[in-house]
Amino acid sequence: MASEQQMKNPLLVGRAIRAQLENEVPQDLPLERDFREDSGYTITDHVQELHTSLSKDPRTLELITALVSHLHAFARETQLTHEEWTKAVKFLTRAGKESTEYKNEFVLLSDCMGLSALVDEINHPKPPGCTDGCEPGPFYTEDAPTVPSGSSLAKSNTQGETMYFSGTVKNLKGEGIRDATVDVWQADGDGVYDIQYPDREEPNDRGKILANPDGTFSYRGILPTAYPIPSDGPTGDLLHALGRHPHRASHIHFTVKAPGYDDLTSALYPSHSPFLGTDPVFATKKSLICQLTEERDPKRWAEMGFKEGEVHGGRVWVWQYNFVLPTVDEVAELKKIRAKKSKL
Amino acid sequence: MASEQQMKNPLLVGRAIRAQLENEVPQDLPLERDFREDSGYTITDHVQELHTSLSKDPRTLELITALVSHLHAFARETQLTHEEWTKAVKFLTRAGKESTEYKNEFVLLSDCMGLSALVDEINHPKPPGCTDGCEPGPFYTEDAPTVPSGSSLAKSNTQGETMYFSGTVKNLKGEGIRDATVDVWQADGDGVYDIQYPDREEPNDRGKILANPDGTFSYRGILPTAYPIPSDGPTGDLLHALGRHPHRASHIHFTVKAPGYDDLTSALYPSHSPFLGTDPVFATKKSLICQLTEERDPKRWAEMGFKEGEVHGGRVWVWQYNFVLPTVDEVAELKKIRAKKSKL
Repeated sequence: MASEQQMKNPLLVGRAIRAQLENEVPQDLPLERDFREDSGYTITDHVQELHTSLSKDPRTLELITALVSHLHAFARETQLTHEEWTKAVKFLTRAGKESTEYKNEFVLLSDCMGLSALVDEINHPKPPGCTDGCEPGPFYTEDAPTVPSGSSLAKSNTQGETMYFSGTVKNLKGEGIRDATVDVWQADGDGVYDIQYPDREEPNDRGKILANPDGTFSYRGILPTAYPIPSDGPTGDLLHALGRHPHRASHIHFTVKAPGYDDLTSALYPSHSPFLGTDPVFATKKSLICQLTEERDPKRWAEMGFKEGEVHGGRVWVWQYNFVLPTVDEVAELKKIRAKKSKL
Repeated sequence: MASEQQMKNPLLVGRAIRAQLENEVPQDLPLERDFREDSGYTITDHVQELHTSLSKDPRTLELITALVSHLHAFARETQLTHEEWTKAVKFLTRAGKESTEYKNEFVLLSDCMGLSALVDEINHPKPPGCTDGCEPGPFYTEDAPTVPSGSSLAKSNTQGETMYFSGTVKNLKGEGIRDATVDVWQADGDGVYDIQYPDREEPNDRGKILANPDGTFSYRGILPTAYPIPSDGPTGDLLHALGRHPHRASHIHFTVKAPGYDDLTSALYPSHSPFLGTDPVFATKKSLICQLTEERDPKRWAEMGFKEGEVHGGRVWVWQYNFVLPTVDEVAELKKIRAKKSKL
C-alpha cells in the first residue's frame, strides 16, 4: 500500500496522476490479491472486496454489489465470448448515440426486456383484487383539460370510429371512491397521438375526467388503433433478432388518482386487437383486456350524450371497466413484505 | 391471436403499422397472460416464454434468457426504485453520448466492474502454473518494430530512468519454448505512451522481440510510471461515488506468442508502485507483481548492452520474469471443463 509521499513520487507516478493528486489523494488499500476462476477467490470476490472496503454509501454499495454479482454470473453462465462482448459494447454505444429527447433507446430497451414493467410493479405493487398497472409510456402530456364525467375527449374532426367508455373507481371493499380523477390519453383511429401531428394546436383524445361522487365516470371518444414503438434503432434490431415485432395492441392509457389511494397508471385493451399476445413492452396483461360491444341504436346514443351526426360508421363501441385502487397504506404494507422477501 | 387479415384491418391497426406490414407480417402468438409478482407466473416468466416461443437462434436465446433472468433478479433483490432506474437510464445515455473512437465509456465501465477481466479469463483460461493474463487495454498499436532479443525499445530522448528486462518463455514442463515472440508496449517515465504525444513520428517504448531459440529474451528500456484511466465521463463519476480512484499502477504490457501455445496477454507491475491494491480495471494480480533490483555497476550495464552515457540517474532498474504459456490443447480442454461446469 502506498503512502501519500509515495503516491506523489515522480519516479513512481506519472505526470497525469500527479496533476490530479493536487486536488485529491485517493485511498489506497493493501488489496494485492491473486484471483482466478478455479481458485477460492475470483475476480468477483475481488471486486466486491474492493467496493465493500471503499464505498461509504450503503445503498450505492448494495446496488453495485448486486450489479457486479449478476453481471459476472451472466458472463460465467453464458461463457461470454470476446466477440459477443464487443458486440454488446457496440450495441450500447449505438443506443446512447441514437437516443434523442423524444426517443431514448435505453428506455425502449428496458421496456422491451420487461424491466420497466417489473420496476413499475416493484414501486406500485398491487394487492390481489386491484387493477393491474403498467408503464405510462412516452405520450402523456401535462396540458390535458380537466372535464366533468360524460364529456367528449375527441374533437369532431378526429379520425376513427365512435366509442363510449364508462366505469367506476372502487376500493378493495367494492365501494365507489369519492373525489377520483381519471386521466385519459390515447391514440386516434389512425393509431396516432395528438402530439404526433405537427399542426397540433390544443390537446385531443386526452383529458382529466372528474368522476362523480359515487366513483362512476364516462367519456365519449374515438376508438384507438394499434401502433408500433420506434424500431429504427438498436432496440428495434434486437427485437428483430429475437423474432419479435414492435407493434402495440390498441389501448387507452389511464392514470386514476384519489385522496388516500395509490395512483394507478394502467392501460386497457380491446379484445379485438391484434398483437395482444406479443406486446413488445409487456404492458398487456390478460386482466386488462376488455370485451367491447357495438351499440347500433340511436336512442341509446343520445342517452350516452352523443348529438345527431356525431356517431361515425353507424355504431358506437361500448367499453366498460371498473378500476380497483389500493389505499396508500395497503401498498406501503405490501412493499414492506416484498422488501423483506427480497433480502431472503 | 390475430390473423394476417385482422392485422391489416384499418379498424384495428393504425397507419404506421399498416405501412410496416407491407414489408413483413410478424408472428403473433396466443400469449395473452396475467403476470404478477406474487402469482405463480411473473413478468420474468412471461418474457422468457415469449423469447422461447419466437427466437430461432439458440445462442441468441441463451444470451437473452440469461440477461433477462439476471436483470430482473437484480431489480427484485434491490427493490429498484423509479428514481434509481431513471438515474441508470441517464447514466447509460451519457455513456453513449460521451464515447469517442479513442475513449469508449462502456469499455471503461466493463473494465471498472471487473467484467473485462472476467471475459478475458473465460476466453483465455490458464491452467495452474501458467502466467495469469489480463486485458490489453487501449494503447496497443500494430506498427511496433520486430527486433532481436537484447534490443533497446526506448529512443534516446525518452523521459525516465533506465531499465533492463530479461526473462524466458516456458511451457508447463519448465522447458524454454522455440520461436516465441514477446510483444511489449509501455508508458514512459512520465506515465505517457508514445501515441499520446501529438508529435509522434514513429513507435517508441514498444516492440516485438524475437526470443532466442531457448526461449530467453531481454530488452533495454525506460521504467514506466503510473497513469490514470480517463475519468472525465460517467464511469469516472461512478468510481468517485464508490470511493475509488482511476489510477493504474506502473506496468508493462506483454503479448507472448509461440506456435502451438495459447497467446498470453498480460502485464507486469513493479512492487514499488502505488495503486497496486486498488487497480481501477482489476488487471493487477499479485502473481504479476515483480520485485525490481537496482544495478549501479557500470560493468554490468555494459554486459546488459548499454553504451556509455545511455544510463540515466546512475542506476539500471533490473526486472526479471519468466512467462509460462499453456498449449492450445491445454486451453481447449480447460474451456470444455468450464463450459460444462457453467451449465450445472
